Amino acid sequence: MRLSDLEIAQAAQVEPIETIAARLGLASGEWLPWGRNIAKVDPAVARGERHPDSRYIDVTAITPTPLGEGKTTTTVGLTQGLGAIGRKGMCAIRQPSQGPTFGIKGGAAGGGYSQVLPMEEFNLHLTGDIHAITAAHNLIAAAIDNQMYHESRWSDAFFQKRGIEKVHIDPYEISWNRVVDLNDRSLRSVVTGLGALADGPLRQGGFDITVASELMAVLALARDLRDLRERIGRIVVALDRGGAPVTTEDLGVAGAATVLLRDALWPNLLQTLEGQPAFVHAGPFANIAHGNSSVMADRIALTQGGFLVTESGFGADIGMEKFFDIKCRVSGLMPDAVVLVATIRALKMHGGGPAVTPGRPLPQEYCQENLELLRSGLDNLRAHIRIAGLFGVPLVVAVNAFDTDTEGELALVRDAALQAGAADAVVTHHHARGGEGALALAEAVARAADAPRTTSPSPLYDLSLPLEEKLRTVATRVYGARDIELSPLARRQIARYEEEGYGTMPVCIAKTHLSLSHDPALKNAPENFIFPVRELRPSAGAGFVYALAGDIRTMPGLPSVPAFRGIDIDVETGRVQGLF
Amino acid sequence: MRLSDLEIAQAAQVEPIETIAARLGLASGEWLPWGRNIAKVDPAVARGERHPDSRYIDVTAITPTPLGEGKTTTTVGLTQGLGAIGRKGMCAIRQPSQGPTFGIKGGAAGGGYSQVLPMEEFNLHLTGDIHAITAAHNLIAAAIDNQMYHESRWSDAFFQKRGIEKVHIDPYEISWNRVVDLNDRSLRSVVTGLGALADGPLRQGGFDITVASELMAVLALARDLRDLRERIGRIVVALDRGGAPVTTEDLGVAGAATVLLRDALWPNLLQTLEGQPAFVHAGPFANIAHGNSSVMADRIALTQGGFLVTESGFGADIGMEKFFDIKCRVSGLMPDAVVLVATIRALKMHGGGPAVTPGRPLPQEYCQENLELLRSGLDNLRAHIRIAGLFGVPLVVAVNAFDTDTEGELALVRDAALQAGAADAVVTHHHARGGEGALALAEAVARAADAPRTTSPSPLYDLSLPLEEKLRTVATRVYGARDIELSPLARRQIARYEEEGYGTMPVCIAKTHLSLSHDPALKNAPENFIFPVRELRPSAGAGFVYALAGDIRTMPGLPSVPAFRGIDIDVETGRVQGLF
Repeated sequence: MRLSDLEIAQAAQVEPIETIAARLGLASGEWLPWGRNIAKVDPAVARGERHPDSRYIDVTAITPTPLGEGKTTTTVGLTQGLGAIGRKGMCAIRQPSQGPTFGIKGGAAGGGYSQVLPMEEFNLHLTGDIHAITAAHNLIAAAIDNQMYHESRWSDAFFQKRGIEKVHIDPYEISWNRVVDLNDRSLRSVVTGLGALADGPLRQGGFDITVASELMAVLALARDLRDLRERIGRIVVALDRGGAPVTTEDLGVAGAATVLLRDALWPNLLQTLEGQPAFVHAGPFANIAHGNSSVMADRIALTQGGFLVTESGFGADIGMEKFFDIKCRVSGLMPDAVVLVATIRALKMHGGGPAVTPGRPLPQEYCQENLELLRSGLDNLRAHIRIAGLFGVPLVVAVNAFDTDTEGELALVRDAALQAGAADAVVTHHHARGGEGALALAEAVARAADAPRTTSPSPLYDLSLPLEEKLRTVATRVYGARDIELSPLARRQIARYEEEGYGTMPVCIAKTHLSLSHDPALKNAPENFIFPVRELRPSAGAGFVYALAGDIRTMPGLPSVPAFRGIDIDVETGRVQGLF
Repeated sequence: MRLSDLEIAQAAQVEPIETIAARLGLASGEWLPWGRNIAKVDPAVARGERHPDSRYIDVTAITPTPLGEGKTTTTVGLTQGLGAIGRKGMCAIRQPSQGPTFGIKGGAAGGGYSQVLPMEEFNLHLTGDIHAITAAHNLIAAAIDNQMYHESRWSDAFFQKRGIEKVHIDPYEISWNRVVDLNDRSLRSVVTGLGALADGPLRQGGFDITVASELMAVLALARDLRDLRERIGRIVVALDRGGAPVTTEDLGVAGAATVLLRDALWPNLLQTLEGQPAFVHAGPFANIAHGNSSVMADRIALTQGGFLVTESGFGADIGMEKFFDIKCRVSGLMPDAVVLVATIRALKMHGGGPAVTPGRPLPQEYCQENLELLRSGLDNLRAHIRIAGLFGVPLVVAVNAFDTDTEGELALVRDAALQAGAADAVVTHHHARGGEGALALAEAVARAADAPRTTSPSPLYDLSLPLEEKLRTVATRVYGARDIELSPLARRQIARYEEEGYGTMPVCIAKTHLSLSHDPALKNAPENFIFPVRELRPSAGAGFVYALAGDIRTMPGLPSVPAFRGIDIDVETGRVQGLF
């Protein structure tokens, strides 16, 4: 009988968090216990130097099907595999939003025998970091409306008497929505401030899901508490009537928002199913934000020595590019190797296989050997290997094996990967067998990371390039576009943001993850396309300018039969049921 | 130099939570550490019997000024005083909302030398219980809109195929707002669901502050996890087109909402400034809900022996009445004594003194001896002593002393209290001097609670009375009204709710706390007034029918200079600044 992820997690023996913290290398004063076998680790630990015997690994993937190709399970499985070959393994992953958990997705703590424990806590509140972001984000939103409300009613003299100045927010230039950590389509676009005297200001606004908040990107990138405070203070929430940026500092709410995020800055320490330390900290979107877990967790882990395996969102074209160009620039840490997760399923899809749709049975092509389809899809794998090469980092291909994969198919992928320049290519069975199923992957990664460097990993572009050139560099060199096309709006915005001083920030491109291009229908390795940039926005607190190439949803909806209908609690044992 | 509450709290030596838990009597497996010197206590402890040497004390107050008369400081100070006289003291209080903390109020962890520690955690996220309620409440709200959205688009057959039935919610009969734990006037009344295809349903709604959620009242009243699950399932969120109640169970979301509140059911254990165990758990409104901390914390504490001091919201007419008629009925626990907090300031106001307004200097009458004004206001004190008598419980008057009170004034109040039937009446200085300042109060309370009972405390009315009679009983016997007057709407609602089976629930009257009557302008002890009941609503999950007598705000606003402007963080030490 095949057990569900939740059954495997609930049957597992969770070790005391003291044991995990000691295994990581922490002293007892360096962390706080926080509920059931979870700790929060003091950011002060990050002040130490990177340990000379540390290895830093980023896990990325080829262009996935809508089902995902097992990047998180590979991250956890590799960590367990490193343990199984006698190396010290640790991982650092993103905290998932609760919204999709109750919508369509179920849990997100890895899967099978490669999971992070405790699984219920991981998928629910954890230590409340996302709730803290919701609170801080909505406090800033309340500060905006409150400022407008009082300014519209009282005189300049009234404000001066109280030692504050009017801000004169342009009501049509507010760029700060409210947030909830939920899938709630009916909050996407709302009118607030209806009512009578004392209930204003009346205006149109909207809600995003909390993980899309700029505060989440800020939390993920903050190097320490001072950096967090400064980044929050730089966040631009609106323009004033003269067109000048209005920051949280201008509204006097930056300090209070930081106070609300004080504990959220402490990374959460959990464990893998096989007892390795597992950091779960921050979870920014991978389109309008950079899609990587926190700088703070990585800094802490790398002071302790051993292999730190982290994961970046979506494929190498998106999450990994942002890992190098945004996260590593901030942290000053560069990886020793990259793992590229591939599946036979996804490669067949790129080779022209029929559509893969969540909730529908997988078409026949994916359930039996089809070398033709697979061979046609290998260009996607080659493109991602080429992308990793741009950053000068050794790459190991991990073929995440499914029961239906044949030896011939697996061999074909391995050979293609090695020919394309991968340092190694191995099949991995961590989902079904845990660390024992990832021995070959762990050995390959250790070899690649331990090998003497011939190149030195680095970001793709120089920050001094103009914004347009940065966009062009990513689109042509990473995505494989022939050129970019800026909308007239994007062109005006670039001119303006460079004038305002945002020109030296890295770019964060929001595009579909289902294609190397901007068009989800273009599978495999499209060429000769023009990459369109519709609009840009500075995330001044996070420290990047994001560019929209397509429609990006920042508030999901619930399906007709939401996952919450199957979730309940055993009132005798307190155990959660139905969390997949 | 006088220290601020925050300075006193930050200078205090916080004891390890292990020490506090052991002092309470808990074994190490009965609680979990949860952050900085906070524990969550396993609800399983509540399965034990009430300890024979336990004493249960409720702290209430006379009708307050808008500044409040120090009920929480007295609760904490008395607990510390019990320690100072060698008795085992514990307290159980409500968790405050974060909204007012950033609005007008500053912290709410007691004050001066009678505080609960750690103070920053107390006033901010604590262990995330209120955030969990926000999440569960808004998940239910999303389930309502999602049901309407999909029902309006897909056929009956579509739903049947998926094993669920249409609910046919009447869009004009939705009684479930959304919530945020913030003061945000512009969310009081909103239109949601604007946009295009996939963004509905379009309707008018609103947000309340989280502590006004029925889920908060449910959490406060739940006897165990099973009871929590059942109460949540009974919550009525809307009516269907046939006028029948729609519950969370009908929407399939009751289980998931309970899962989100699983940890919130574990009471939070903190400590007083002098090291007594202090439970901080649940904080329902005292008007539309019952305004008392959790049944769970009280049950746990009373299994361990010693004095448990708890606090009920507003004056004896409101919070204490609901303590007996709602909370004690559910818990099956009856108090041994009640403490009535009075101040010279409030009594002078009742005697005809000028208005007391937050943020304005106190008028002269309150800063110097004025026996005349004080004497005129004593009727309010007498009325509250009479109210406690209705419940058959011994009462100790605690005169919360201010620097400006004179010996003559204090003696006048003590004498009046004793004449009116108080078991004792003492002056207390816990704010300035901690437990040492509350020795007399502790002695008096211990005497009253230890004395052999001549009466047996009981609720005011029998549940089998019709709703109208219950309302009349509370209004005439407690508030001193001549009679009640039901609006035509209220009359129709009573008939309907009795038909629907809510007739045997207790009533929970929402009225102003600034008068014994429904009219905040009627100070002291008004007589001969007719108490108007405008509207009723069942809180089917909490298990009471609430009645509105006046406008009750369930979403506060922010002032022109909100408290958040003064709140910041020391980026070197991580200490919070400006939290009063």
